[in-house]
Amino acid sequence: MTPANTADDTTVDIAALLERGRTLSTPVLKAAVDRLAPPMDTVAAYHFGWIDAQGRPADGDGGKAVRPALALLSAEAAGAAPEVGVPGAVAVELVHNFSLLHDDLMDGDEQRRHRDTVWKVHGPAQAILVGDALFALANELLLEIGTVEAGRATRRLTTATRKLIDGQAQDISFEHRERVTVEECLEMEGNKTGALLACAVSIGAVLGGADDRTADTLEAYGYHLGLAFQAVDDLLGIWGDPDATGKQTWSDLRQRKKSLPVVAALAAGGPASERLGELLSADAKSNDFASFSEKEFATRAALIEEAGGRDWTAQEARRQHAVAIEALDRVDMPQHVRAQLTALADFVVVRKR
Amino acid sequence: MTPANTADDTTVDIAALLERGRTLSTPVLKAAVDRLAPPMDTVAAYHFGWIDAQGRPADGDGGKAVRPALALLSAEAAGAAPEVGVPGAVAVELVHNFSLLHDDLMDGDEQRRHRDTVWKVHGPAQAILVGDALFALANELLLEIGTVEAGRATRRLTTATRKLIDGQAQDISFEHRERVTVEECLEMEGNKTGALLACAVSIGAVLGGADDRTADTLEAYGYHLGLAFQAVDDLLGIWGDPDATGKQTWSDLRQRKKSLPVVAALAAGGPASERLGELLSADAKSNDFASFSEKEFATRAALIEEAGGRDWTAQEARRQHAVAIEALDRVDMPQHVRAQLTALADFVVVRKR
Repeated sequence: MTPANTADDTTVDIAALLERGRTLSTPVLKAAVDRLAPPMDTVAAYHFGWIDAQGRPADGDGGKAVRPALALLSAEAAGAAPEVGVPGAVAVELVHNFSLLHDDLMDGDEQRRHRDTVWKVHGPAQAILVGDALFALANELLLEIGTVEAGRATRRLTTATRKLIDGQAQDISFEHRERVTVEECLEMEGNKTGALLACAVSIGAVLGGADDRTADTLEAYGYHLGLAFQAVDDLLGIWGDPDATGKQTWSDLRQRKKSLPVVAALAAGGPASERLGELLSADAKSNDFASFSEKEFATRAALIEEAGGRDWTAQEARRQHAVAIEALDRVDMPQHVRAQLTALADFVVVRKR
Repeated sequence: MTPANTADDTTVDIAALLERGRTLSTPVLKAAVDRLAPPMDTVAAYHFGWIDAQGRPADGDGGKAVRPALALLSAEAAGAAPEVGVPGAVAVELVHNFSLLHDDLMDGDEQRRHRDTVWKVHGPAQAILVGDALFALANELLLEIGTVEAGRATRRLTTATRKLIDGQAQDISFEHRERVTVEECLEMEGNKTGALLACAVSIGAVLGGADDRTADTLEAYGYHLGLAFQAVDDLLGIWGDPDATGKQTWSDLRQRKKSLPVVAALAAGGPASERLGELLSADAKSNDFASFSEKEFATRAALIEEAGGRDWTAQEARRQHAVAIEALDRVDMPQHVRAQLTALADFVVVRKR
């Protein structure tokens, strides 16, 4: 690593960086949601954790807010004030939450951020409708800026959204297939997670006047950061602490997700890999899957680990992290911004939720 | 009416006008759909009627294609070639079909254009996903043009889409309410149908360089044309010929839609209006509604007619048609374009499907 690559992480307060993203973007996000016609405004407020299912004010967990923090740093990377990135931060958050609303419904996920999901509380129609509305709002917020830069930012966001949708389509199709290659899985995760994180890292810079080459290189950092993020998510989806993640134990195994640890274990060969393959093949045809106990999922998780799927995924997270940091090297930016982007990448890889 | 308002309809071949819209926009629409990752491309092709449920080529009914015809005339109204309106025509069709895919799922509609709906054939997840993808594609197609005009066109399309979603939210909420005023119903229909038709009539002009005042006036024509269109749709939704509409008999009554004929009949007062109110109140609480026979819906339809709801709605269609034609008067445009827009408005009011 060159010195420019090495953030002195003790000088970067990650909590403060995430908090700044939240503080600057949340009022704009709330004002955007207030534009929605009833009852969509209420349903969206529930989804964001601002009210509870009975409509009482709540101080819910709005997520880690990595994307808003990145969008503000993105503006600063182009030499603009962090505030220039705010509409971008909010637009990316709106698209992210549009996808959560729709994905939770498609995947049948009943819990997110320690609370019942929107389709569970307000019904499938509201989950579809409010998702659609947040997607439209994202474009509206950017396009009403009215500048050429805003048009370019919207185009990048649209491209990312299309990839996000492609990724969800691939993810769903994988659940019905017996075998998925590691390459297919990485492509899916790049679409589903990498593309929008990439956009978060370029959108502030584009709004701040950065050229396409700079924006593309920032996107390379964001894309690989997204892949590192998703590799960690895949580990947490199997071995995460439910109290920290807000999801069920063995969450991804319950949904038969072909996530990285699973496909890497299946590709590894050897006795544990073969036994895992036999079990998962039988599971796919089983009528009893819905009544599986903790023990049955624990067996599958142990085989994944024994076949090397857990270690491979942890290593993949570090590999993608390194590629992300390398991309940062190719962009001129203020030194403190580089240090913060580096520290955020470090945080993403070590997080527990 | 001034002479400028009076189209000599015998000189306008409506079928040829709709066919031109289809011929110029369908190849671009197909190329756009081809960009979707599998299986979304196939699901979308089924939705548009290009293939059947088994994936075999089909020559399905792609709808009336009023919107593409309008978008091309819109470009011509601004003095541009009809081809300039093509990306706008396709973007509006994509948004229209995004809303059909999602609305059919939310409303539980099993048939559209004489065929099973997408959620019925390919499942709810594909209906959500492909709807999302068409919405994103619409923005992508416009924004990749890369001009200031394209940015303005995308902004108008986004505004229309937000209204479309508001309208669907209102429509759903009406089904759970005992009474809806005529004003509320008209507002809902303006959002759900007027806004996107308005956008179809401005988007070609905006792409052709029209100023905002011209675009707004063209939108006024389109908005009221949309309200006329919807009033006719509401009549067809109760009294339409299933062979022509591709819907079930008494389709809107089966779904307890608070459409214009219903709300107008309930607002009218008198014995038939009161009897209708009693029946619909009882229906809302009834557990037997799902097993209602043709006769029970026929009784309700007769009461709506007796209370004047059918006549009022037919008159409302003519009223909105007149306001639409008036708006045309306020825009300078080639005489043959004015004649064609006038003839299209006439067609919308007399159509049987």
